[in-house]
Amino acid sequence: MSAVKVGLLGLGTVGAGVVNLLARNHDEIARRAGREIQILHAAARHPDRPRDCSTEHIRLTADPFEVVDNPELEVIVELIGGEEPARELLLRAIDNGKHVVTANKALIAKHGNEIFEHARAKGVTVAFEAAVAGGIPIIKAIREGLAGNRIQSLAGIINGTSNFILTEMFYQQREFADVLAEAQRLGYAEADPTFDIEGVDAAHKLTILASIAFGIPLQFDKVYVEGISQITTDDVAYAQELGYRIKLLGIAHHRGAGAGISLRVHPALVPERRVLANVDGVMNAVMVTGDPVGATLYYGPGAGAGPTASAVVADLVDVARENNMDPEHRVPYLAFQSHDLSDEPVVGVENVETRYYLRMDAQDAPGVLADVARILGDASISIEAILQKQPAPGVDHVPVIILTHRVLEGRMNDAIERIEALETIHGRVTRIRVEHLD
Amino acid sequence: MSAVKVGLLGLGTVGAGVVNLLARNHDEIARRAGREIQILHAAARHPDRPRDCSTEHIRLTADPFEVVDNPELEVIVELIGGEEPARELLLRAIDNGKHVVTANKALIAKHGNEIFEHARAKGVTVAFEAAVAGGIPIIKAIREGLAGNRIQSLAGIINGTSNFILTEMFYQQREFADVLAEAQRLGYAEADPTFDIEGVDAAHKLTILASIAFGIPLQFDKVYVEGISQITTDDVAYAQELGYRIKLLGIAHHRGAGAGISLRVHPALVPERRVLANVDGVMNAVMVTGDPVGATLYYGPGAGAGPTASAVVADLVDVARENNMDPEHRVPYLAFQSHDLSDEPVVGVENVETRYYLRMDAQDAPGVLADVARILGDASISIEAILQKQPAPGVDHVPVIILTHRVLEGRMNDAIERIEALETIHGRVTRIRVEHLD
Repeated sequence: MSAVKVGLLGLGTVGAGVVNLLARNHDEIARRAGREIQILHAAARHPDRPRDCSTEHIRLTADPFEVVDNPELEVIVELIGGEEPARELLLRAIDNGKHVVTANKALIAKHGNEIFEHARAKGVTVAFEAAVAGGIPIIKAIREGLAGNRIQSLAGIINGTSNFILTEMFYQQREFADVLAEAQRLGYAEADPTFDIEGVDAAHKLTILASIAFGIPLQFDKVYVEGISQITTDDVAYAQELGYRIKLLGIAHHRGAGAGISLRVHPALVPERRVLANVDGVMNAVMVTGDPVGATLYYGPGAGAGPTASAVVADLVDVARENNMDPEHRVPYLAFQSHDLSDEPVVGVENVETRYYLRMDAQDAPGVLADVARILGDASISIEAILQKQPAPGVDHVPVIILTHRVLEGRMNDAIERIEALETIHGRVTRIRVEHLD
Repeated sequence: MSAVKVGLLGLGTVGAGVVNLLARNHDEIARRAGREIQILHAAARHPDRPRDCSTEHIRLTADPFEVVDNPELEVIVELIGGEEPARELLLRAIDNGKHVVTANKALIAKHGNEIFEHARAKGVTVAFEAAVAGGIPIIKAIREGLAGNRIQSLAGIINGTSNFILTEMFYQQREFADVLAEAQRLGYAEADPTFDIEGVDAAHKLTILASIAFGIPLQFDKVYVEGISQITTDDVAYAQELGYRIKLLGIAHHRGAGAGISLRVHPALVPERRVLANVDGVMNAVMVTGDPVGATLYYGPGAGAGPTASAVVADLVDVARENNMDPEHRVPYLAFQSHDLSDEPVVGVENVETRYYLRMDAQDAPGVLADVARILGDASISIEAILQKQPAPGVDHVPVIILTHRVLEGRMNDAIERIEALETIHGRVTRIRVEHLD
């Protein structure tokens, strides 16, 4: 069979990783795909700059539009990231009748519906395995491997930077800011780490996973997002004392037909025996629960040139195979046939029921605990455990930690407001959700 | 698109699971596949017996050959298990030009090369996701999701029964025979549990995984197989003391071009922090390490009607899609193009290098440990740790546990023979491999 002719947008770390991978594993890949995959044309901001890959047989340009307009190319790989001009470039590639492979999670999460509509009209494939969880073939697992299931929920550690920070806070008892600075030095975190530590990056990925799991349109703006910047080393230690680890989770839960879907990214206490609790460092993992399969889990490196290139090349092999298939037989972009997406509503987080970890700074005096317990009792919130620590010498207030049973978020928020109004409670109540993942 | 017409061989637990799944998740599946999947004809040994599924729209027969010869059917699902007549039936279905889906690991491991040759000649698909690790889409992950990688190794817990037994031995300190009897009562283990506890079932699955990972023909007879029936509760406890869990692993390792591939199933000590060490009960997990992806892991239920049906239906959806694709574009049976399989040799276990756990019963006298250490030293085997337990009251011998560094299996065996010849060592030396999975 003839070679697949590919154009590449972006020749940074990941782009060079893809070029190197196609060269280094050339024989393995051709033995699988049955044909060659050739990058013929690539756009880089500074085409003359020295690179981490050989560009000997690649035509280089500073103009990415030159690549997407090159009639010789069948597939465009987009690795420049961000929303624009990535969106414009992909739409133009699609309108030119080219298949597209992208690692761009923000683009798919926010503009995927538009991109897929164009692609459908043109009968081309849009593949985005690299957009979620790096080297883990999670898109393929959900879209194809679990195609017989009604997916009920998924929960994942899908941001490596925040997981690295929480892991260091756990094992080394280091403070958040200190670890973040190290993550930036190591290159795990960007100079502006907001997307990572405030949960936005995880929300992009969760948006994509939820769509292919439940057959709903991409709805990034409906995801509840809370990051890890408020988590303290004390919280991590108290959680451990109670048998939990704190993780930043992306959770999508289908509550049953008509009952809505919840989409949320937030830190959570996870029982220490669960596999997800033991996913450390920059690794990612996604647990997918479906009927009839039950709980399955997918684990691996969530970022980096190698894992991302692995996902991009797997997509290229798929595209090479599907190239001559009539579009209606291909795996649908969002796993479900486009005309058959569901309008199941996404429910607000105030309607979600979970357990809670509460930490408050209480005056070391008789009756304080009783006041707090009464507020929770009045709101019908059951207490599972209370920890009251010894006061530090010369300090007249103590940390009180409470684990609750399941309660609606809205009700919990009201109770917290009342607790914070107590004169014997200093400052804000820290509230972290507890997810048993059962 | 028109419905896919399917014939089913076997209407036991898994067969009924597939029928029920196609009914229960009918809409979900059709929304994904874009077409119906209809079981029209099924063979069961006793067609009139009451079943756990509705067979209202299915023609039933006691003669499976009637199903494979039915010209109306496009796909045959084989769920009767065993080598014959499953082999004969599949070959006949293939020769009749039908695609085939099977959950039969023994059949694929031992007769897959022959079956694939027939299928290739006829241009039909043979799908076997359900043959390995139940509901985990591990075949798809390796064959397609990691298509860009040079797979270096895989290590898996791929037999639920033996993992259930080892888990109970660990958490409940129960003896092997006692837990096995319970597993048989619970239906996890067959009346003849040999295939499960002696590693044969895991070896079938490892054979398949190794082929699709490395692009080699199926070579079941080259797998080194050792079961768990010799593992004692003491071994489990000593392993724990040293920071390890004992697991039955299937390991396939590519030692590099020309250096051969090792294929082995045996119990192993796994460091307790590794995810694989924490896979409990009847769950399965497979770790796959490749360049450039690094280590990835796939976890889920490895058996049972629901998980197996999940895998069978995913295969049916794939077959429905590939049906109108020309065969050379399909994913190859063993991941690599048939004319491009590698003849990389499988090396004997005596050439494999690992760490070892040794347990021996030593006379409680000065100099005994020195004798053992000298034998190991003479064989250039480095000791990582020694545990010498207190003798029980009135007993004059003590358990001695030794962890070694890496050594060739052949050299270890020679040293063990010399240790067993010492007058101060009673009986045989227990030897369990230690796998750090790094």
